[in-house]
Amino acid sequence: MPVNLPELHVSLPGWIAPFVARYPEPLPDMEARMKMVIALSMENVRNGLGGPFGAAVFDEEGRLVAPGVNMVTLANNSVLHAEIVALMLAQKKRGNYDLSDGANRRLELYTSTEPCAMCFGAICWSGISRLVCGASSEDAEAIGFDEGPRYPDRAAELTSRGIDVVLEVCRAEAAAVHRRYVAAGGIIYNAAL
Amino acid sequence: MPVNLPELHVSLPGWIAPFVARYPEPLPDMEARMKMVIALSMENVRNGLGGPFGAAVFDEEGRLVAPGVNMVTLANNSVLHAEIVALMLAQKKRGNYDLSDGANRRLELYTSTEPCAMCFGAICWSGISRLVCGASSEDAEAIGFDEGPRYPDRAAELTSRGIDVVLEVCRAEAAAVHRRYVAAGGIIYNAAL
Repeated sequence: MPVNLPELHVSLPGWIAPFVARYPEPLPDMEARMKMVIALSMENVRNGLGGPFGAAVFDEEGRLVAPGVNMVTLANNSVLHAEIVALMLAQKKRGNYDLSDGANRRLELYTSTEPCAMCFGAICWSGISRLVCGASSEDAEAIGFDEGPRYPDRAAELTSRGIDVVLEVCRAEAAAVHRRYVAAGGIIYNAAL
Repeated sequence: MPVNLPELHVSLPGWIAPFVARYPEPLPDMEARMKMVIALSMENVRNGLGGPFGAAVFDEEGRLVAPGVNMVTLANNSVLHAEIVALMLAQKKRGNYDLSDGANRRLELYTSTEPCAMCFGAICWSGISRLVCGASSEDAEAIGFDEGPRYPDRAAELTSRGIDVVLEVCRAEAAAVHRRYVAAGGIIYNAAL
C-alpha cells in the first residue's frame, strides 16, 4: 500500500510563555496553583477560543513542571485535552513516562475542570501523586461538553492507586470560564449525546 | 517564574514505512486488517521491545489512514498507547478532530488488544464508527499490564454512541505476541497494582 505517514508536533500556543513568566515561583499553596490553571483556561478562550480548560503539573513545592491547555480545535486532535497536554509535556521534560520516578519526586496535576473519562484513565498511570480539580464534570456538562462514561467512584479508584484527590478548589471561578466560553461563541466540540 | 516549555514530536518508528509498504491496499476484510495490526504489535516488540500493542485506523474499504504502535517506553510518554497514536495521526491526516467528518467517511479503529481505560475514553469522541479488537483486556492483564479501571459494559456504552464493537478477532494470535514480549524480557511498565 502507499506509504503516507503523518507526524505530529505538539507545542503550546505562543501566548503561554509570557503568561507563565508573569507568575512568581514557587506558587505557595493549592489555591494559588489552581488560580493559575483557571487563568490558563481563561486565556485559552481569549486567545482564539480554545476549549475552556487549563491544567498544569507542579512539584510539591509549587514549581511548574509543565502547563497544558485544551488544544482540540487548535490542533485538530481530540486527544489533546489540557490534562493530557500537561502530562505528556511533563513526562517529556522529566524524560520519564512515569512521573513518580521511583517516588523521588512527588508531582501533582492541577486541572481547571474534573477530568473526562479519557483523562481519568491517563491519570491512573501517569505517576502523579495528587489530582486537584476546580470545576466539576457536571459544570462542564452543563454547557454541553461530553465528559464521557463516568467510572463509579473515581476518587476512590485513584486513591487506591496512591493518588490523592482534591475536588472543587475555586470551583465557581473555574466554572465561570465555561460560561464565558459559551457567551463568546465557543464551539462545543464532541457535544454530549 | 522561569519559562522552560517542552515540546513534543510524535513520529512513528522508522521500521513502519517499509512494513506498511509490504501490504496490498485495500485490505479486503476484518481478519486481514486485524492480522496487519497484530503484525505491527509483533514488529514493535522485535524492533526494540516497545509494548506489544498495535493499532490502525482504516476506512471502511480497508485503506489505511494511520497506523499506531505503543510508544510508551520509546517516547517516554505514558499516553502514547497504540490506539492513541493511530487516532491522533489519523486526525492529523484528515485535518479534523472528529473522524466522523459529518458522517461522510466511516473510519474504523483496529487494535491488537482491547483498549485500556484511557483509550476507551478517547475512542468515545474520536469519531470512529467501529472498534475491532484482537486480544482481550484479560489477556493483557495476564502478563501483568494495567488496563485500568474498567467501565461496566463498555461495548454497550460505545454502541450507544454509534460505535460498533467487534471483540476477539484473531484473539489467540494477538495474545501470543504478549507472551513473546514477556519471553523477550519486555518491560511491564505501569504494572497492575
